[in-house]
Amino acid sequence: MDMDSPVFLAFCTYATIVILKMMMMSFMTVFFRFSRGAFANLEDQYVCMDKPAEERKKMIKADPDVERVRRCHQNDLENIIPFVVIGLLYSLTGPDLSTALIHFRVFAASRILHTVAYVCPLPQPSRALTWMIGMVVTFSMAYRVLTTASYL
Amino acid sequence: MDMDSPVFLAFCTYATIVILKMMMMSFMTVFFRFSRGAFANLEDQYVCMDKPAEERKKMIKADPDVERVRRCHQNDLENIIPFVVIGLLYSLTGPDLSTALIHFRVFAASRILHTVAYVCPLPQPSRALTWMIGMVVTFSMAYRVLTTASYL
Amino acid sequence: MDMDSPVFLAFCTYATIVILKMMMMSFMTVFFRFSRGAFANLEDQYVCMDKPAEERKKMIKADPDVERVRRCHQNDLENIIPFVVIGLLYSLTGPDLSTALIHFRVFAASRILHTVAYVCPLPQPSRALTWMIGMVVTFSMAYRVLTTASYL
Repeated sequence: MDMDSPVFLAFCTYATIVILKMMMMSFMTVFFRFSRGAFANLEDQYVCMDKPAEERKKMIKADPDVERVRRCHQNDLENIIPFVVIGLLYSLTGPDLSTALIHFRVFAASRILHTVAYVCPLPQPSRALTWMIGMVVTFSMAYRVLTTASYL
Repeated sequence: MDMDSPVFLAFCTYATIVILKMMMMSFMTVFFRFSRGAFANLEDQYVCMDKPAEERKKMIKADPDVERVRRCHQNDLENIIPFVVIGLLYSLTGPDLSTALIHFRVFAASRILHTVAYVCPLPQPSRALTWMIGMVVTFSMAYRVLTTASYL
Repeated sequence: MDMDSPVFLAFCTYATIVILKMMMMSFMTVFFRFSRGAFANLEDQYVCMDKPAEERKKMIKADPDVERVRRCHQNDLENIIPFVVIGLLYSLTGPDLSTALIHFRVFAASRILHTVAYVCPLPQPSRALTWMIGMVVTFSMAYRVLTTASYL
């Protein structure tokens, strides 16, 4: 693992991109919570303290749009973190640069399209497909890790 | 960190195994969502578009079995990711191969048994015990990392 | 990545500290579940099997304090894992030791204060600020990774 290997440089770049994409979901959640007036904690309403207490209590609720963004964020946690872990180990097994780039690029594209398909939402099976493509990329890398670096 | 060190090879293998196990939970969630007819998004019902809209609206619900699998998946996220991070750093501290293998094997076994105990479900304290064993393994590796590689 | 580099040693130390902090949330959840009598699974009530079945069924509920701790844990997953991933890549780009230490220390402090602000809870915007500071640290490290190790 050194910064002279192009495969590892590519991994660094794409891992950072998908992790930043995942962190963007936090900001999207904050945006929807404020625009929909749907908060999870009473103390989070400090920006609307001028409103009566009764009305503010009603703002502790689960809004469908907020929940949709949170499910998308959760799906990112469940898929992007396995990609980062397996991708790191995969980079160390010395794959071809072009093969590695295909894996990283397809995964990054599939997760960005997944978010678009989830948040808009686009009709299925667009989201199911983007999710599946990301899964297949991670499985393909895991297969190479297990076949080249197996020690049970 | 190189692919000639047996400890690091063992880490690669077991980290990949537990991450793959975690990813399996996604498929289990999909299976239970379809078999129980309990979806999180309206657009996910594209396979049963022949049913009347009213009936489909009732399928946006939280099914106990689906929620159980999702809690198990969440528990994996909360325990397997710390293991992978701390395990990676632990592998770099140069532990004995046999000691490292015990850590990795016990953790992998405890998480597989944890999933069995959660999803079946087996009577407690089987799940509590498997969870605790995984925790102890991660703490033991964290202790070695902090004592051999401390720089505050 | 070797154990002779002080930057990498510092990363190991602070990554382990924030991951351990995140794992502490599991124990806090268990503590609140038992003290509030609010469980997620029927089989988890094995410690109060002397109570009548009716009463135990009522203990399958969402308690506000338990949910608060779980939201805090979820926020840790959403923020600490990106820090660990980006921080690992950042450590490999060869930053100044003092700059790296500032990043790691500020992040660790911000997440510990975030937990205090969330669980107590302290009045806002204390939690929002601690969350934002952690985010900025991760973005700053991601910026360095992308500018020094870019390979698209």
